[in-house]
Amino acid sequence: MASSKAFTMAGGDAAYSYTKNSTIQRDGVDAVKEQIKEAILEKFDLNSLGFDTSSTAVIKIADLGCSVGPNTFFSIQNIIEAVELKFLQAKNQNLSALEFQAFFNDHYENDFNILFKTLPPRKYFAAGVPGSFHGRLFPKSSLHLAHVSYALHFLSKVPKEVVDRNKSNVLNSSDKEVVEAYSTQFKSDMECFLNARAEELVPGGLMLILAAAVPDGISASDTMAGLYNDVMGSCLKDLVKMGVLGEEKAKSFNVPVYLATVTEVEAVFRTNGNFSIEKMEKFAQPMKTPLSPESYALAVRAGGDGLIRNHFGDELAEQIFNHFNTNVEQNFPKFLGVLRNNLNLFIVLKRI
Amino acid sequence: MASSKAFTMAGGDAAYSYTKNSTIQRDGVDAVKEQIKEAILEKFDLNSLGFDTSSTAVIKIADLGCSVGPNTFFSIQNIIEAVELKFLQAKNQNLSALEFQAFFNDHYENDFNILFKTLPPRKYFAAGVPGSFHGRLFPKSSLHLAHVSYALHFLSKVPKEVVDRNKSNVLNSSDKEVVEAYSTQFKSDMECFLNARAEELVPGGLMLILAAAVPDGISASDTMAGLYNDVMGSCLKDLVKMGVLGEEKAKSFNVPVYLATVTEVEAVFRTNGNFSIEKMEKFAQPMKTPLSPESYALAVRAGGDGLIRNHFGDELAEQIFNHFNTNVEQNFPKFLGVLRNNLNLFIVLKRI
Repeated sequence: MASSKAFTMAGGDAAYSYTKNSTIQRDGVDAVKEQIKEAILEKFDLNSLGFDTSSTAVIKIADLGCSVGPNTFFSIQNIIEAVELKFLQAKNQNLSALEFQAFFNDHYENDFNILFKTLPPRKYFAAGVPGSFHGRLFPKSSLHLAHVSYALHFLSKVPKEVVDRNKSNVLNSSDKEVVEAYSTQFKSDMECFLNARAEELVPGGLMLILAAAVPDGISASDTMAGLYNDVMGSCLKDLVKMGVLGEEKAKSFNVPVYLATVTEVEAVFRTNGNFSIEKMEKFAQPMKTPLSPESYALAVRAGGDGLIRNHFGDELAEQIFNHFNTNVEQNFPKFLGVLRNNLNLFIVLKRI
Repeated sequence: MASSKAFTMAGGDAAYSYTKNSTIQRDGVDAVKEQIKEAILEKFDLNSLGFDTSSTAVIKIADLGCSVGPNTFFSIQNIIEAVELKFLQAKNQNLSALEFQAFFNDHYENDFNILFKTLPPRKYFAAGVPGSFHGRLFPKSSLHLAHVSYALHFLSKVPKEVVDRNKSNVLNSSDKEVVEAYSTQFKSDMECFLNARAEELVPGGLMLILAAAVPDGISASDTMAGLYNDVMGSCLKDLVKMGVLGEEKAKSFNVPVYLATVTEVEAVFRTNGNFSIEKMEKFAQPMKTPLSPESYALAVRAGGDGLIRNHFGDELAEQIFNHFNTNVEQNFPKFLGVLRNNLNLFIVLKRI
């Protein structure tokens, strides 16, 4: 559990909280709303799922790696509206006999108190499920729909090889051995993720995935994760030089995140064998909401705050983010550029 | 939701947290361990619940009004051990095909973060469910066992009649109109509670209830809730006289708690009609763990901290509890006396 606690979005309602700084992710959620609707209308087969026309139906949905609201609430709402439409279109279906149970999952360290207190008025029964989605979270065959949005790039841990060779600044994205170790960890984590979901989803159940990925052939330093690592690495080096940080402390900081290539993502789904790939669509990173250096820096902080704070403590974390923000301001066009390089994947898997 | 947030146990891990001050309730949980085992062995009918001998069984259990640990963890563990024993005793039952999902329910303001972080190693899938148990919390027919321990005396709100006639100190337990209004509220709340559970439990599903009650014919001031109200009322009066509290603020403080008589409790179960009363056992308040004035005062604070804090604010809350503690020290034999007056009820209901 020690490693899985690493990457938790900032809870609470501070200026840098995830609740207030998740418009990049929100744009993605909005972008796939129609695709989710289509996927459910086309691929969620009520008959084969055992929902006959007369009895009560309870549809169980999980959002995995949900963080805090509001994005997870929009996603669940989008899924429910699509399922209702599906039931309405099916002859003789009685919508009043339809009930929904939504499970919000994230790490034990996620701020479930804030999640629960900000739940909107809703037509579903809500539950929080703490734990890593790289392992089992639900009983066998207990879910009809699983949703995971911008979360598969969070690894279960920093790869052992990277921790072990903690002799140079491992944040350098041009280090091929490091990139290789991260890639291997990603494949292993995804296999665990898919095997757990294969147990939990009923046959015919769907997994709806929105994932960030990088185009094949792009160099690591031109990806969001790569640039973040490089800039954060250079910030830490600066702070070491300035005598603010100890060298060992800085070197032992690693980020359990890997943005896989499109080919890598596709490969993990194809090799698992428990799911059919019903859809796999690529599209450019949606960037509807304009970003400023400030809003970008806050978004980065909302994501990385817990990780930095856990490793360096509260006081140093403030100094690191201040330094990082200055760097973002100075290099903002580069940050926007790598964000544009990002591909988004919308994937629909069906449990065989 | 405003009123339902009133009575939440103190979260966190402070000296007065419920986690550290719930041995009175723990003694009760221990006292009914054997009774829970017997109830499940005798009354949890695997065949009529549809658990045949070949397939996977997922048993869904809810602890309603669970607060934070550790008591709720002991209760769930006791229930699971009893169900496993039941499956073992049933011919041909395969324990490895048995899975459990435990739902921990309490108000939105409950400290679910602490609850999740303190979950022990376990053989069940855990979920938190925020919301008042006076309304629906789960989909139709989605629970096999519901458990509620020392929670039914928490009302959904202070009765309207009591709030409206806020002209004298309504904490006085000898005021018959006030007692009557509380009793009516209790009956109405219990009807809501039972109707919600009737929807959520499968036919044949069990509700296991541990409740505090007062013997018939005892005067309100000789009950725990009555004495608490009287002493808290006199503390507030003192603090008004001392100029620490405003009179209106003190008078508008009410406690949404009613300890019903044994007859009242039995009546609400009999009149509901959705459940058969399988067992109803009375026993004296278990008091295995010795109480000191300090531990008693801390236990009271663990229960009432949120309520007092919400109404009076942090600073005044400290002063009120300090004053209250002095009163507990001075009148400790009386407090122990009314605790001894308490009856406990263990009730097993089966969904018809």
